[in-house]
Amino acid sequence: MRLTAFTDYSLRVLIYLAVNSDQPATISRIAQKYDISRNHLMKVVHELSQKGYLIALRGKGGGLRLSRAPADINLGELIRSMETDMAIAECFGAKNTCIITPACSLRPVFSEALNAFLAVLDTYSLADVAPGKRGAQLVRILASD
Amino acid sequence: MRLTAFTDYSLRVLIYLAVNSDQPATISRIAQKYDISRNHLMKVVHELSQKGYLIALRGKGGGLRLSRAPADINLGELIRSMETDMAIAECFGAKNTCIITPACSLRPVFSEALNAFLAVLDTYSLADVAPGKRGAQLVRILASD
Repeated sequence: MRLTAFTDYSLRVLIYLAVNSDQPATISRIAQKYDISRNHLMKVVHELSQKGYLIALRGKGGGLRLSRAPADINLGELIRSMETDMAIAECFGAKNTCIITPACSLRPVFSEALNAFLAVLDTYSLADVAPGKRGAQLVRILASD
Repeated sequence: MRLTAFTDYSLRVLIYLAVNSDQPATISRIAQKYDISRNHLMKVVHELSQKGYLIALRGKGGGLRLSRAPADINLGELIRSMETDMAIAECFGAKNTCIITPACSLRPVFSEALNAFLAVLDTYSLADVAPGKRGAQLVRILASD
């Protein structure tokens, strides 16, 4: 039961941008701060850009910015959008070979559990997890300079 | 967001035993029915036995049996017991290197979501997913002979 690294990194990018909202950020800087692969992060940023979570500005003074206020980035929506593998068990995926699938009632039970998981995330926004109570500490850790 | 194959297979073993309760089963037979690795299944059965979900009887007339009635095998308890990786994100695990962990509020949010996921499973037993409404169909698929 684990989110993909892709989703994990997408959260880290958005938290970085929420905390460093006063200046555009670069992929290199974010990769360096979190000590994660720049190549992997490029794909994450591309996807976040495609899905409208951030804007990549070119040229001098360019860089990455959130496209909306952190309070308008819902975590449930983000996870649904970024998590490529929501297949809790084999029977949720395209390559299912489990013989009992037509008669098994596990799938609706796991669907209900997954919906409950996402319903909790639906009640939180990026503003709740990033610059909230611990905002000052996050700024110290992630400050650009 | 996916359960390990280990947990998936443990559910399949218990469903098999719930459906074929009239006679002891063998690992070979279960592996053959589901077309999954016998070696992998041996480890799953060993763990289920260690954790008190099934009994392995030796000798003539021996084999695998559920140790309790399906209605007494709670799915939430089973998943908590069998799922070795409940680390939704890196910060839940022992090998966490995420720099913002001390200041980040994602972990309690994901804990709350995971608890909601498990709370749904806590309301179901093996009897709800195995020989329930679709019991006859499961018997047809998994019948030993």
